[in-house]
Amino acid sequence: MLSPPTLLLVLDLVGTFVFALDGALTALRTARLDIVGVVTLATVTALGGGIIRDLIIGAVPPATFSDWRYLAVATTGGLVAFALARRLDRLSLPISLLDAAGLSLFAVTGASKALDYGLGAGQAVILGALTAVGGGTLRDVLIRRVPAVLHSGLYAIPALIGAAITVAATRAGVYGLVAAVAAATACFLVRLLGIVFNLNAPRPPRAGPRR
Amino acid sequence: MLSPPTLLLVLDLVGTFVFALDGALTALRTARLDIVGVVTLATVTALGGGIIRDLIIGAVPPATFSDWRYLAVATTGGLVAFALARRLDRLSLPISLLDAAGLSLFAVTGASKALDYGLGAGQAVILGALTAVGGGTLRDVLIRRVPAVLHSGLYAIPALIGAAITVAATRAGVYGLVAAVAAATACFLVRLLGIVFNLNAPRPPRAGPRR
Amino acid sequence: MLSPPTLLLVLDLVGTFVFALDGALTALRTARLDIVGVVTLATVTALGGGIIRDLIIGAVPPATFSDWRYLAVATTGGLVAFALARRLDRLSLPISLLDAAGLSLFAVTGASKALDYGLGAGQAVILGALTAVGGGTLRDVLIRRVPAVLHSGLYAIPALIGAAITVAATRAGVYGLVAAVAAATACFLVRLLGIVFNLNAPRPPRAGPRR
Repeated sequence: MLSPPTLLLVLDLVGTFVFALDGALTALRTARLDIVGVVTLATVTALGGGIIRDLIIGAVPPATFSDWRYLAVATTGGLVAFALARRLDRLSLPISLLDAAGLSLFAVTGASKALDYGLGAGQAVILGALTAVGGGTLRDVLIRRVPAVLHSGLYAIPALIGAAITVAATRAGVYGLVAAVAAATACFLVRLLGIVFNLNAPRPPRAGPRR
Repeated sequence: MLSPPTLLLVLDLVGTFVFALDGALTALRTARLDIVGVVTLATVTALGGGIIRDLIIGAVPPATFSDWRYLAVATTGGLVAFALARRLDRLSLPISLLDAAGLSLFAVTGASKALDYGLGAGQAVILGALTAVGGGTLRDVLIRRVPAVLHSGLYAIPALIGAAITVAATRAGVYGLVAAVAAATACFLVRLLGIVFNLNAPRPPRAGPRR
Repeated sequence: MLSPPTLLLVLDLVGTFVFALDGALTALRTARLDIVGVVTLATVTALGGGIIRDLIIGAVPPATFSDWRYLAVATTGGLVAFALARRLDRLSLPISLLDAAGLSLFAVTGASKALDYGLGAGQAVILGALTAVGGGTLRDVLIRRVPAVLHSGLYAIPALIGAAITVAATRAGVYGLVAAVAAATACFLVRLLGIVFNLNAPRPPRAGPRR
């Protein structure tokens, strides 16, 4: 079995890698960016959520800056996506799947690390979701898109579910690799439902912009 | 009389509630958001300023995450606004008034907490204003509006006035409920003048975009 | 010779001043802002990078809030630019040069302060670049431009070069005024090459937006 700190690190690095691919492919598809811009957007997407998490729980300098592997993994992800751009640039599904995977992994690691730093259960759930959506939100702000967390109903909710399962498992004393994978999988599947069926949460009675 | 920490908490929670209403109504009016998007934008607007304040003064985890009432109040505000959307969605005045109220309360609590953490008078005034404008600025960035703090002359100034009165009262040893209400009221009235008369600070001699 | 803390302070304040001019002139050229909006955008541009740096290395409250000179210099820069707006508003070169100067100085101070706080060499280089591009990126987000760090190939790279020279000189034990000026000059010249020749890093094989 992986020790808890190793488990956190592994999940965090896998999440960093998939978010870096996601950010880089988004950069290639939606904006005319050169290799530096692609790698920059990859690292912002991959590292943004964790930096926000660590600043809020007081883990400074953030893991991103105290452990070189985060930067190495994020940069590698950006470069890999850049190299594969020709093959991937017509596919939007990979981006959505990568984004869902990163969301799921960071919801788990965000909630888990928040508990390690003594936050309460409710706060850890919120912080897990914030870690999960943070990097993608920064990415969307930088390329001037309305962030998915605002317009896509099943984006914040799966992150909250993944974080809640993590917190519940930890409080029940059964948190470990199995529980972490189960929590991430639950988040991933709910997010997938949202993508496939384009589901949204309830809208207000008379919705729509009014100026 | 309220003890100083209780006074800070009460003003902070009232400010959180009105900013949550403001954020939710803004979400309903200017973007097609479902209930998750509305609550998300409500919490960002309500909690953003306080999180920025607490990160800067080193109060981590921020009050938002160490005290569950902030999250509860912000979420409730978002849900209340969502439920009342049908009645409120043609009125723009309520949003402006709610925003002015949040601005006023957070200018006072931001300056007051900054002094508690040992910042100098000038810095406390700036930090009060930053707390006041922070949440609304994050809200505007997320929905892609130019933030009010940039284009509305009497937005930062009333916040600075409210924070300055708070700092002056504290230094004079007369800070308490009365002084806090007076400082918030001064900010609110100046902001109201700006809204009613659409006032702006001086523009440069030959203003206007030039590309 | 300047002592290391004094050197850091001087370079930081000069960088703050040029970034304030840059932010204010950008505000005057690209958005219809009044004097409050101009000064606000000047301070965001001037202080944003250093605040991000200090939050990440755990230097709270950030220098901006513990030392009144940062706020004074940033505000003065904004007011000076406002007063000179009539003469400068047709010139885009000054803005680019000021921005390049701020980039160069903050790359050096960011890397240098990161080393002071015990970060590793690679992390200090990244943090130097982040300090350099942070304020301008916040400025661009607030006025809804795609940040230069994403679309301009030779923007992040010169910052990384300036930071890397700073770190190398420090590790070699020869960091001081001369090394700092050399590092900033190297960054400035590379950035200038990018501006003059409109250079970009390699693009992907089949670049271009695809929706």
